[in-house]
Amino acid sequence: MLSKSQISFINSLKQKKYRDEHQLFIAEGAKIVPELLNSDIVVKQVYATSEFLRNNAIPATIERFEIKENELERISSLTKANEVLAVCEIPKYKLNSDDLKGKLTLVLDDIKDPGNLGTIIRIADWFGIENIVCSSETADAFNSKVVQATMGSIARIKIHYCDLTSFVQQQITNNQQRIYGALLEGKNIYNEKLSSEGLIVIGNESRGISEDVQKLITDKISIPSFSHYKTNEGQAESLNAAIATSIICSEFRRR
Amino acid sequence: MLSKSQISFINSLKQKKYRDEHQLFIAEGAKIVPELLNSDIVVKQVYATSEFLRNNAIPATIERFEIKENELERISSLTKANEVLAVCEIPKYKLNSDDLKGKLTLVLDDIKDPGNLGTIIRIADWFGIENIVCSSETADAFNSKVVQATMGSIARIKIHYCDLTSFVQQQITNNQQRIYGALLEGKNIYNEKLSSEGLIVIGNESRGISEDVQKLITDKISIPSFSHYKTNEGQAESLNAAIATSIICSEFRRR
Repeated sequence: MLSKSQISFINSLKQKKYRDEHQLFIAEGAKIVPELLNSDIVVKQVYATSEFLRNNAIPATIERFEIKENELERISSLTKANEVLAVCEIPKYKLNSDDLKGKLTLVLDDIKDPGNLGTIIRIADWFGIENIVCSSETADAFNSKVVQATMGSIARIKIHYCDLTSFVQQQITNNQQRIYGALLEGKNIYNEKLSSEGLIVIGNESRGISEDVQKLITDKISIPSFSHYKTNEGQAESLNAAIATSIICSEFRRR
Repeated sequence: MLSKSQISFINSLKQKKYRDEHQLFIAEGAKIVPELLNSDIVVKQVYATSEFLRNNAIPATIERFEIKENELERISSLTKANEVLAVCEIPKYKLNSDDLKGKLTLVLDDIKDPGNLGTIIRIADWFGIENIVCSSETADAFNSKVVQATMGSIARIKIHYCDLTSFVQQQITNNQQRIYGALLEGKNIYNEKLSSEGLIVIGNESRGISEDVQKLITDKISIPSFSHYKTNEGQAESLNAAIATSIICSEFRRR
């Protein structure tokens, strides 16, 4: 049975303040938790139904608690609790300019929506992008909504938070990398030469890329609209940030 | 001031049963409602703050109610009510084989998540796809979560619900159209010839395309993964349905 202090501890991890303090985060569900158990993420505790424990081997180093469905509901963040909740260590990655040489890296300038961030992490995983560098105002990647939206990709992508302007400047100075930015006035991405290394900057959902970072963009790109409506008839003004990211990553990789 | 019966009527439209009965839906917010007012959608009533009414011209044919922020909160489906709520007529579109000739059409086989459906409608708008044909098990496009996720594109895209197997069969018989389906075992989309007309079938978020519809697919396509993880190390298994749709539409249109 779950103790009151266990319940309140787990629920506290729904807040960034306590995740930062304990350096722990929560992942849930019979699809994601086995992926994390099978990854480099350090899983500390597993709270699971007897059914989950019957079907999944939990290494002896991990504390395990067999609980009932109604207990799981008391600690779950999901609309419908799903067999298992795991408490995991937030991984620490060093952001080293040298490690980004020869690679594509995603740079997120204030992506605020947890669903968008989670989806972008999943896209990075699909397109073989190892690192995502986020402004400090970007949503927290270890927020449980983000973790769930990554569908397990959170275990494979290195996510860094830092001051973007200094980071981008450093990539230009140290690695002479191209800085691609998705901007409405950018050049048609379908016709551009795209490098196999560099930074791809994605801006905030409503404001786009911040002014300071925009100054450092070397290649402004955009995804053309094929709408048969003219702008003054009110055509779609923009694509969702995660959708734009997926199309841009697809264009970089297909060539 | 809002009457009790107005409040209960508007709140009833959050349920599909009452939307169907009255053939009405709700749209909200200072960004989407002006787009709808400026479109072919018939807006019946506008419930708005004085600020919204000062900044937006409402045609005389539309019933308008000036209400306070706290009244708006009582009828809003948003986490944070945003100036205006509009009650609109659900548009009626005829699904005619002839109208789909020479065009690309999206076909959704049980897309269940309202956010995914809304995002797909927005993608269709961006890529100039006029019609979306949905299985009857697909989420309701006039659910308020879908309407909000379309960011106004709901006004420009014709959405139809029908039996997919008969519809796809009919397109083959009447229009000799190619039926493209996103399937894991499909051919690499980057290397395929893609027609400028035909159906693009997107399957359910977890089960994919149903067996009956799969039998009618003429061109199986897939988006290759560029992950540096091997499958047995647990690489990303799939892309989100809306993300896959965006990459596929981009590939059809860029050529």
